[in-house]
Amino acid sequence: MVRVLVDVLLKDEILDPQGQAVERALPALGFTGVRGVRVGKHVELEVDDGDDLEARVARMANELLCNPVIERFTYRVERG
Amino acid sequence: MVRVLVDVLLKDEILDPQGQAVERALPALGFTGVRGVRVGKHVELEVDDGDDLEARVARMANELLCNPVIERFTYRVERG
Repeated sequence: MVRVLVDVLLKDEILDPQGQAVERALPALGFTGVRGVRVGKHVELEVDDGDDLEARVARMANELLCNPVIERFTYRVERG
Repeated sequence: MVRVLVDVLLKDEILDPQGQAVERALPALGFTGVRGVRVGKHVELEVDDGDDLEARVARMANELLCNPVIERFTYRVERG
């Protein structure tokens, strides 16, 4: 098994109201100099390793974890 | 400005129904050999760099991005 970490974000051209809400809340909490906030999903899974790992992860992400019309994903694999 | 990527997950001892739902849905889509699914939040921000960057990010995460009672966060900084 390897640990796979998938990050899902709205595409850059899609409005992100949750990110905007966070960005607007930060100054009131004393944080200045923060911009470009985007909020998405983070998914961690333990997956059987294998030659087709990348293809399986990409298919899982596209079919279940993200909506490829409005979202994009990145992932990284942690071994050992 | 540096890009900061924050991942927020429920603590391991806290039940994660969304992760369980994903884990149960995967076999029906033809994915076997997946377990330990946890679903959380992924937040990306552009933050002014500085000596106190780590302290600022930790404070932002604890005060706004995550609920430290039931969640834990990790973050990484992308420079350049």
